[in-house]
Amino acid sequence: MADSKFETILAPLRAAVKKQGDLVRSLKENNASDMEVKKAVGELKVLKKQLDDKELSLQPPSEIFNRSKFADLMIRRFFYDQSFSIYGGVAGLYDFGPMGCALKSNILEQWKKFFVLEEQMLEIDCSMLTPERVLKTSGHVEKFADTMVKDKKTGECFRLDHLIKNRLETLIKDKKQTAEVKEECKDIIIKLDGMTTEQMSDIVNKFNMKSPTTGNELSEPVDFNLMFATQIGPTGDQKGFLRPETAQGIFVNFKRLLEFNQGRLPFAAAQIGNAFRNEISPRSGLLRVREFTMAEIEHFCDPSDKSHSKFGDVENIVMKLYSACNQMDGQPPIDITIGQAVSQGMVANQTLGYFMARIYMFMMKIGVTKEKLRFRQHMSNEMAHYAVDCWDAECLTSYGWVECIGCADRSAYDLTKHGEETKQRLVAERKLPVPKSIQVTELEMDKGLIGKTLRKDSKECVEKLSKLTIEEIQQIHKFIDNGKPDSATGLTLCKIGDKEFNISKEMIPLRSYLKTVHVEEIVPNVVEPSFGIGRIIYTLLEHTFKIREKDEQRTYLSLPPLVAPLKCCVLPLLDNDKFTPLVSTLSKNLCQKGVSNKIDDCSGSVGRRYARTDEIAVPYCITVDFDSLVEPQSVTIRERDSMEQIRVPVSDVIDLIYNLSQGNIDWNVAKDKYPKFDSQQATE
Amino acid sequence: MADSKFETILAPLRAAVKKQGDLVRSLKENNASDMEVKKAVGELKVLKKQLDDKELSLQPPSEIFNRSKFADLMIRRFFYDQSFSIYGGVAGLYDFGPMGCALKSNILEQWKKFFVLEEQMLEIDCSMLTPERVLKTSGHVEKFADTMVKDKKTGECFRLDHLIKNRLETLIKDKKQTAEVKEECKDIIIKLDGMTTEQMSDIVNKFNMKSPTTGNELSEPVDFNLMFATQIGPTGDQKGFLRPETAQGIFVNFKRLLEFNQGRLPFAAAQIGNAFRNEISPRSGLLRVREFTMAEIEHFCDPSDKSHSKFGDVENIVMKLYSACNQMDGQPPIDITIGQAVSQGMVANQTLGYFMARIYMFMMKIGVTKEKLRFRQHMSNEMAHYAVDCWDAECLTSYGWVECIGCADRSAYDLTKHGEETKQRLVAERKLPVPKSIQVTELEMDKGLIGKTLRKDSKECVEKLSKLTIEEIQQIHKFIDNGKPDSATGLTLCKIGDKEFNISKEMIPLRSYLKTVHVEEIVPNVVEPSFGIGRIIYTLLEHTFKIREKDEQRTYLSLPPLVAPLKCCVLPLLDNDKFTPLVSTLSKNLCQKGVSNKIDDCSGSVGRRYARTDEIAVPYCITVDFDSLVEPQSVTIRERDSMEQIRVPVSDVIDLIYNLSQGNIDWNVAKDKYPKFDSQQATE
Repeated sequence: MADSKFETILAPLRAAVKKQGDLVRSLKENNASDMEVKKAVGELKVLKKQLDDKELSLQPPSEIFNRSKFADLMIRRFFYDQSFSIYGGVAGLYDFGPMGCALKSNILEQWKKFFVLEEQMLEIDCSMLTPERVLKTSGHVEKFADTMVKDKKTGECFRLDHLIKNRLETLIKDKKQTAEVKEECKDIIIKLDGMTTEQMSDIVNKFNMKSPTTGNELSEPVDFNLMFATQIGPTGDQKGFLRPETAQGIFVNFKRLLEFNQGRLPFAAAQIGNAFRNEISPRSGLLRVREFTMAEIEHFCDPSDKSHSKFGDVENIVMKLYSACNQMDGQPPIDITIGQAVSQGMVANQTLGYFMARIYMFMMKIGVTKEKLRFRQHMSNEMAHYAVDCWDAECLTSYGWVECIGCADRSAYDLTKHGEETKQRLVAERKLPVPKSIQVTELEMDKGLIGKTLRKDSKECVEKLSKLTIEEIQQIHKFIDNGKPDSATGLTLCKIGDKEFNISKEMIPLRSYLKTVHVEEIVPNVVEPSFGIGRIIYTLLEHTFKIREKDEQRTYLSLPPLVAPLKCCVLPLLDNDKFTPLVSTLSKNLCQKGVSNKIDDCSGSVGRRYARTDEIAVPYCITVDFDSLVEPQSVTIRERDSMEQIRVPVSDVIDLIYNLSQGNIDWNVAKDKYPKFDSQQATE
Repeated sequence: MADSKFETILAPLRAAVKKQGDLVRSLKENNASDMEVKKAVGELKVLKKQLDDKELSLQPPSEIFNRSKFADLMIRRFFYDQSFSIYGGVAGLYDFGPMGCALKSNILEQWKKFFVLEEQMLEIDCSMLTPERVLKTSGHVEKFADTMVKDKKTGECFRLDHLIKNRLETLIKDKKQTAEVKEECKDIIIKLDGMTTEQMSDIVNKFNMKSPTTGNELSEPVDFNLMFATQIGPTGDQKGFLRPETAQGIFVNFKRLLEFNQGRLPFAAAQIGNAFRNEISPRSGLLRVREFTMAEIEHFCDPSDKSHSKFGDVENIVMKLYSACNQMDGQPPIDITIGQAVSQGMVANQTLGYFMARIYMFMMKIGVTKEKLRFRQHMSNEMAHYAVDCWDAECLTSYGWVECIGCADRSAYDLTKHGEETKQRLVAERKLPVPKSIQVTELEMDKGLIGKTLRKDSKECVEKLSKLTIEEIQQIHKFIDNGKPDSATGLTLCKIGDKEFNISKEMIPLRSYLKTVHVEEIVPNVVEPSFGIGRIIYTLLEHTFKIREKDEQRTYLSLPPLVAPLKCCVLPLLDNDKFTPLVSTLSKNLCQKGVSNKIDDCSGSVGRRYARTDEIAVPYCITVDFDSLVEPQSVTIRERDSMEQIRVPVSDVIDLIYNLSQGNIDWNVAKDKYPKFDSQQATE
């Protein structure tokens, strides 16, 4: 019922997107000018955004997220908070407190198990400091920039496109403006994405824009590179940057990795580490920061064979895919198996599809809400020019759909670029299906003859000869054929490199023969899943944030035990020394099993302490009471989400908590096995 | 026998150290001038170095480490190598390849289990980018610098003290120099450590020193800060650095951490992460680099109580301690229990001793050679002025004794400094043994009266009054008592802050009363164990590097299974499709158990493949042969160090490898349980 009502509301918006999408298609087909296409695409984006926003606004109220309560929990229990806040804080820098750090650690551990271990990837750990030349080659020095303007008096900086958009949107809302002006503003906003710096600068002047915070004059636009620059070494002549992504470290190590893999393709390398982007105006908490942890995979494969040997394991997985085509048509994402998506050509190849499915499985494993995860395909205008296909795993948060993971087929771009710049052969060998015969011509110098003839000059002559190409040698042969050899010696004065020597053809014979080759060289293609760990953490925290029914004040996080910061809390029922030995023993034994836990022996009722452990997402509590001290010893185990309690013999408890926290067994299994707990029998 | 012969050789060197140590002591006792003490200490260091060098040179030949074979293995199997080497490389930057990265990961995992989990520490993860003000407060902006000179033509930089020392040592060896010059050079080298930049500059001029690589003129000395500087944000007015250590991130979060710990002391916070030092001339491979991983612990405790509740667990552990006193006396380190060392006062307190013992246990667990680990106490001249006591865990490598871990009692220095700079109360509360009554005097403004009297000025007056101290209010009272109040209003014109107001004593009465307080504020002291992870990895690799007896070409690494990069390798005996299903199943089941493993199905004899797995420290190989395909299925397990082989049923193998690789059971236990393997029965 609700769905069909929503669809009625959305129908005109969908139709508008489709109409504009069709216009873009036809412009492209008819080779319209770049500017025309850009304008149409810009308008398409605006319409898509309106559709998205409307869809989000139709969410049922129970789904509305209480961001202030959430933020309060994050800061109060120090999941994360702004860095250096006793010094006033720095925008875009965050510290993870004990619980945030443990959550991050657990997510990364699962990531390593799921990707590195299960897929036998080669994990490496490269330097963050990166010399300028590497990032020139990768394109980051030139292209990784935003255009900004500065407040002439205070020096405050604004991203030029944001500034213009915000100002024009204000004008559009301003009742004093004429319909004509408003129309012009709308038109500019639509075209903004494709404008040059000069065009944007003209708009700033035309509308006489000032600093939005002070009203001061603004500077001319300047390009600002988003990388943090520094100097490596004391001389000041080795410029470096903090890496803006971890991928380049893998590309520059390609040869070593291929060798480690004994020359065989395909293989994947992975890296977890920090990267840095000097955002002009960081915002949205953990979503847009200046220092962040990434986990990136570069899967190197044969460009002519992008099948994946394990694709069969995932082909029946159903995912929510939002293809470029559906986006152009104003249609919603569809649920489809990855097998179908690849066979229909919606997803470019099996390898890309395989990784999308693995990403999906990973996100489910760590506890992301299934309905709030979709894969959105880049439209051709969003995609880097070298990419073949690119899908973003997007998660729905209170900030809208947020890109958490990119998954792109980057073709041979990176290896080719680094190879050209360094003159290294960043290639692999491919076995030919059948060996092939090729004509080879080689120079076979007669060094004995050269030595005897040229004596002390022979070494230099040989050196220069060995630098010549076969074509150059052939030209020398021609030159000798057409020249006049010295009648006494039979030698001809020939230019070899930058010097002349008296030589004969006999000294430099060419030999041609057929050679059988079994391999050919190829530049591997790269499929790159790239995970923004901070964004995944943020999403997961939002998705698992809950408020207890009937008690607005009690908030908790329903993180899966596998990634929960602490797996267990051990509580004495009361502040009584009699409980201490058993409480300590249980905690110690859990540690030995590798189960992270803490003792909460603070004063306060058990109920209050449960509420406190709920806030930090502890899935299980073990409570020691007077019954626990009586043979046969037993304790209460309480589960966080259901608040259900069972009574378990002390002898079973460590293994039970271990298996529950590893996800080996589920709470329902434990509930079936052990009696429900109501109240203790014994008292002091 | 050997030992006593060595002691005879070392005796005169020990005596020389002792004599000089006694001189230093007596100079200090007699309040000799700073310069005199520094010179004597410098000479003491030279003598200590001579003693150390001689001791090292007396090592038996079997212990001589083959560094070139070692380096070859590290690079060939890509444990680690220089970063960006296809771009020519950058000095002091290294990438860890798949095996190095896994080793590092495993060491850090063990570290977390051993420290964070077992000691219930609060692990956090802070920003690397750090604003300048934080590092000014910590002292790094001012003091974290080396003095250098530049080659005037090439710009090459040299550390000034290294340059002088190297040049003078050359002169000392030069036969053409007079005895007088040589004596002067020796004298300068001894004093060098305590010299000012001006004094060193004079020496450069006096000896007319030039660039050692080009012979060019040198610049005047300049201070070079070892931190990497950058700009945070686009405005260019927020200078920042890459952190030179992780500790500051913990100190600036002290308040949040204390609160997370519900206000209770002692507690420890920990952090693992990268730090950066822009070394002038990096060298010695992984030992002196520009980017490195640290793991630091800050244990916050009551300054008046540095006992440790778990000290009893470690007090009987025997460690090799090299006290400052023994160093001054030319004596070797001694083996002593940490309990004795603390009770004798050699180690300052239980908390420091507890962490030293835990460090020792950790280093043993990951496989450092016991005889190559010592704890050396800083002599008073080496210690930061705020430190109470400091011990370095040093490991013997082919570069000599290398500091891998520092363990210092830093007193209240860091919290005091950050507290002063930020005006934040970085303190904890200590419960008083008995509540205490204190006299409290408070200003109780009569705001109603002030308002009625001063009207529009009242707000300003109240503001200024509230900034005054009690003493200043008392002075105003006195001023009113001694002055002449206006006869009409009864008011006196008084200066309050920077302005005058007509007031009366009735407006600003003081109230004194007795208050019972249960707590007092203290600035916690900090005990800091600080681990250099790269150095520990390097040490461990050196300590476990082995060459097979009788086969010089076969090298291997005897890393403990717990930290070995891969725990297991699964090999089919031959390149035969029949083996594939079992090989894959075994590998997959190992993965599911979390046991890192790889399949080696490359061609080559099993022996050659074993040798290859030995090189990457794989402790166990599972070999699938024709017998494995016959019921009851069994496989061969081979152990790396002993090269022994046993035959194990397939049904047992996963659990066996898991338990072996976790260190739950030992190879000897497995050998007792399963038959030795000689050769397979079945063939194809």
